[in-house]
Amino acid sequence: MSHNDLSRLSVHTMTNRPWSLAECIENYSSLGIPAMSVWRNVINPEEGGIGIDKAAQLIRTSHLQVPALVRGGFFPASAAEQRAKAIDLNRRCVDEAAALGADMVVLVVGAVPHMPLDEARRQVEDGIIQLLPHAESCRIRLAIEPLHPMYAADWSCINRLREARQLWESIQHELLGVVLDVYHVWFDPELDQEIHLAGEAGKLFGFHICDWRVETRSLRSDRGLMGDGCIDLRGIREKVEAAGFTGFHEVEVFSEEYWNWDQRQYLELITRRYLEAS
Amino acid sequence: MSHNDLSRLSVHTMTNRPWSLAECIENYSSLGIPAMSVWRNVINPEEGGIGIDKAAQLIRTSHLQVPALVRGGFFPASAAEQRAKAIDLNRRCVDEAAALGADMVVLVVGAVPHMPLDEARRQVEDGIIQLLPHAESCRIRLAIEPLHPMYAADWSCINRLREARQLWESIQHELLGVVLDVYHVWFDPELDQEIHLAGEAGKLFGFHICDWRVETRSLRSDRGLMGDGCIDLRGIREKVEAAGFTGFHEVEVFSEEYWNWDQRQYLELITRRYLEAS
Repeated sequence: MSHNDLSRLSVHTMTNRPWSLAECIENYSSLGIPAMSVWRNVINPEEGGIGIDKAAQLIRTSHLQVPALVRGGFFPASAAEQRAKAIDLNRRCVDEAAALGADMVVLVVGAVPHMPLDEARRQVEDGIIQLLPHAESCRIRLAIEPLHPMYAADWSCINRLREARQLWESIQHELLGVVLDVYHVWFDPELDQEIHLAGEAGKLFGFHICDWRVETRSLRSDRGLMGDGCIDLRGIREKVEAAGFTGFHEVEVFSEEYWNWDQRQYLELITRRYLEAS
Repeated sequence: MSHNDLSRLSVHTMTNRPWSLAECIENYSSLGIPAMSVWRNVINPEEGGIGIDKAAQLIRTSHLQVPALVRGGFFPASAAEQRAKAIDLNRRCVDEAAALGADMVVLVVGAVPHMPLDEARRQVEDGIIQLLPHAESCRIRLAIEPLHPMYAADWSCINRLREARQLWESIQHELLGVVLDVYHVWFDPELDQEIHLAGEAGKLFGFHICDWRVETRSLRSDRGLMGDGCIDLRGIREKVEAAGFTGFHEVEVFSEEYWNWDQRQYLELITRRYLEAS
């Protein structure tokens, strides 16, 4: 079944990478989009962002909801000092999420080329355990996002919902759960089962949508907009909803092609495709 | 432990794509490489190949061993007629493998964009079952190669050793087993267990090596040569050998970069890297 309205739609600011936070807010609001997931680059002054105080003020005034700050994580590192720095940075992410009124911080957990993946996974678990007390004091949820195995070398040693589940089962904390991004897990034969298990346990914190282009031209920035590719978006959404998920459907598309479009026209297409193809 | 010699090395003709079969044979032989896995393009006249009879004659004269003909498979299709054609083509692959004195046909099982993956998987099982009697009459083994999930849309609905195992466990035929290509499975948390299970059951028919470049530039043709990337090649080889595998180590590298090299220099590098980094 299609959506009737935009009441569950959230757009990731990175989807409209050419826009500043203010432009995102203005355009999302004017099209009736109720929520926005905020990437750190539009906040962080070092990356041209407007700073957390101004960002928080803009968002408060806008009445847009913020399901997620994107992204923390990147826990594993060869040196202990670097791992400690990663924890500090993650605590700052939690603070920022709290300042923006966000519900969760999305964790792209990290990986280090040549570090055995099971060692990286241990370091991720250790990092999350160290981060949780601060998340608790700010009441911010942490959502592990399993990334497609093509990112296993350097971005994420957690590549399946099952692996994320092993973490939340092991750590057992109400503020720790998962994000299901269709791009990373659509092909998993255990998808139905993992959605069910995560939903049942109340661990399905986020739901990201986009599409897999059949002739994908780049590993990093050639995602499709809903309807451009071959993912059974409705089928997955129905399973996610049957598992009890009631949060936003967050559109997260990295695409050199779409970043070159007029962003307003692109955003209008996003809303149409959301209604028709997801 | 490094290799002491080239006695277990096999090179896929596609690794040296610019070469004809005759050039592959001449160069592999002159460097003391004892085996070669033959891709159909160097045989098939429609793709500029020399035809099966001449190919068989060249190979017999060369004394090179041929672990595998690459590749059959591509079973799923929307129309029954197309699926029947795929079976016919696979029977021809089996005939060619027999004519070349190859041990096995590698199966890249196929996928159809928008076809649910579980339907595609059923069609693969059905196709293999239909192909087996002919494989039996020719005494040619069929080796399912799980492909990286980034090929799940259009090349292979079987993306993990576990999924391949479900097929060989279900079909139960002595001529059906798997190929482990490090490129497709290196990140799998169940890798050790699956190698053990396949080895124990005598199902580990082939072992393909290359490397995962950390900054992979293309999904199709940017594989690394052993040592270019981050895969723990020795660790995986030791597990494969501990599981009882005694076959060839087949170098299969699709790389636009290396295809642009002088192929003789490249082949010399392949032998060095095989000895030092795998």
